Amino acid sequence: MAEIRFDPIDRQTVVIAPERSKRPKDDFDSSKQNSKKCPFCPGNEDQTPPENFNNGDNIKNWTIRSFPNKYPAFTQLENGNNSGIQDVIVESDKHDINMGDFSQKHLRELLTVYKKRFESIKAKKSIKYILLFKNHGLMAGATLEHPHSQMVGLSFIPRNVEKRIAELRKYYNQNKQCYYCRLVDKTEKIFENKYFALIAPPVARFSYETWILPKNHQQHFELSGDEQLSDLAEILLKQIKALNMAQDKPAFNILLNNGLYDSNHDDVFHWNIQIIPRVSFQAGFEYATGMYINQVEPDRAVQELKRNTLLV
Amino acid sequence: MAEIRFDPIDRQTVVIAPERSKRPKDDFDSSKQNSKKCPFCPGNEDQTPPENFNNGDNIKNWTIRSFPNKYPAFTQLENGNNSGIQDVIVESDKHDINMGDFSQKHLRELLTVYKKRFESIKAKKSIKYILLFKNHGLMAGATLEHPHSQMVGLSFIPRNVEKRIAELRKYYNQNKQCYYCRLVDKTEKIFENKYFALIAPPVARFSYETWILPKNHQQHFELSGDEQLSDLAEILLKQIKALNMAQDKPAFNILLNNGLYDSNHDDVFHWNIQIIPRVSFQAGFEYATGMYINQVEPDRAVQELKRNTLLV
Repeated sequence: MAEIRFDPIDRQTVVIAPERSKRPKDDFDSSKQNSKKCPFCPGNEDQTPPENFNNGDNIKNWTIRSFPNKYPAFTQLENGNNSGIQDVIVESDKHDINMGDFSQKHLRELLTVYKKRFESIKAKKSIKYILLFKNHGLMAGATLEHPHSQMVGLSFIPRNVEKRIAELRKYYNQNKQCYYCRLVDKTEKIFENKYFALIAPPVARFSYETWILPKNHQQHFELSGDEQLSDLAEILLKQIKALNMAQDKPAFNILLNNGLYDSNHDDVFHWNIQIIPRVSFQAGFEYATGMYINQVEPDRAVQELKRNTLLV
Repeated sequence: MAEIRFDPIDRQTVVIAPERSKRPKDDFDSSKQNSKKCPFCPGNEDQTPPENFNNGDNIKNWTIRSFPNKYPAFTQLENGNNSGIQDVIVESDKHDINMGDFSQKHLRELLTVYKKRFESIKAKKSIKYILLFKNHGLMAGATLEHPHSQMVGLSFIPRNVEKRIAELRKYYNQNKQCYYCRLVDKTEKIFENKYFALIAPPVARFSYETWILPKNHQQHFELSGDEQLSDLAEILLKQIKALNMAQDKPAFNILLNNGLYDSNHDDVFHWNIQIIPRVSFQAGFEYATGMYINQVEPDRAVQELKRNTLLV
């Protein structure tokens, strides 16, 4: 049974989740042999919990499917405040495809599945916050290689999210503008289309870290219409391809930071996607100080990624 | 030239340090062949900057030596507020020895070198904070395998350290006792001797995370006398050996959290050592929420490490 603890001095939240240690782990070095035993590969559907989405016309004929996480860090919603829903979304029927090799059409369909799952999870009354993330590669924390994303619906708001919203509120009150709208206005774009801008954040924690921001102020991802999702698929695919060129197919995390389900934050929160490459390890210095060391000047990353987006 | 940037929303500090990317990196898989080209091995002393400490009776006859970091993240002290001093302390003349295989006498001598370096660095006027840490193993952020520690003297106080001290002050005012003194009193010990207690923190972020706390309230490590350093060598060695048994010689970080050089914090700050094993990667969930997931219940870790300390 998972338990949530809070450190009174370092103000950190820790989920004690012994069940998670039972997860299967791929041996990433011999990945080619894994598709027979990979629980996310076609033919092994019976190794996952019952699915809550499948885009095929029969159970085996899918390219995207979704089901509850078999090894959740959070207990079920019935158990009160410290609880959540955790889904796994298998992004492709191909075991070792890189997101950069997805077709734009397939990526667009995946974004539509994300949207459907957000709508379905937020309909549950106790859910206060939903996080979508993807861990790609061992160094980004993936334990299975088969491309997949994860959604976590929580019955509480993570402290970091609360703090971020409080700072966004302060910024808004001082500047009479949403912080992310300002970034869209003032920051050099790596790439942009009608609905989205791709930028390197001025205080990038990681080499080649980038953010995708909707150009129009919007609190929730799932309010995106068809045209927006097409544009999002284009810009996300561009960036994964450009990043694969810049860092030779690095491990990376994708984080979709979505709004709370609380209209009081509509003016200050602006959903966004962070793409963080993971080519080095957090070391003692980072843990002791909370500081990050970034070896690539964000402006230099912008110029390189900009050139790459013209080539891909 | 390194530059420090601060994120106004997520309140994170990032050091932009392009020079760091020129660091040499060991290929950890073929470490046995590395001692010829390892800059920290005996015989290669000319590959490091001029040393500021050497325990040998001539330049080549050493088992511990110290010198400025060749690839610093911080600029020199002359350059104003965002600056620092960075030292590397080579802990042994043996390229691939694990700290758990150090003799207690050698570890005690290493602690004495730490003490000397703290005294020497804090004597520089502009230094406000000194951090000592060790990265052991690739997953803990080590780029070179040869056992070494690092010291960073900063002309500013990292935000996390400032926040921690503010929380410790609050705790002290509410409870009329230092937080760490309370931990020493109330927490089950894995091991203890006259001067130190080894505990698992109640809100451990990492599986088998442990802390070494001086039993007597003391703000600064370098005030430790000879008897204390002997006890510290004993308890640190016990824990590294016990951890090596529990997790099969894991990568780990050692962080020495020392006090500020400001007598106003004498009552609330209590120096300590954190030993954090690194057997899994921080993933998207952790970055998006700031929460940690720990798969080993701290009380279970205490029982296992306690048994191990009896065997080592």
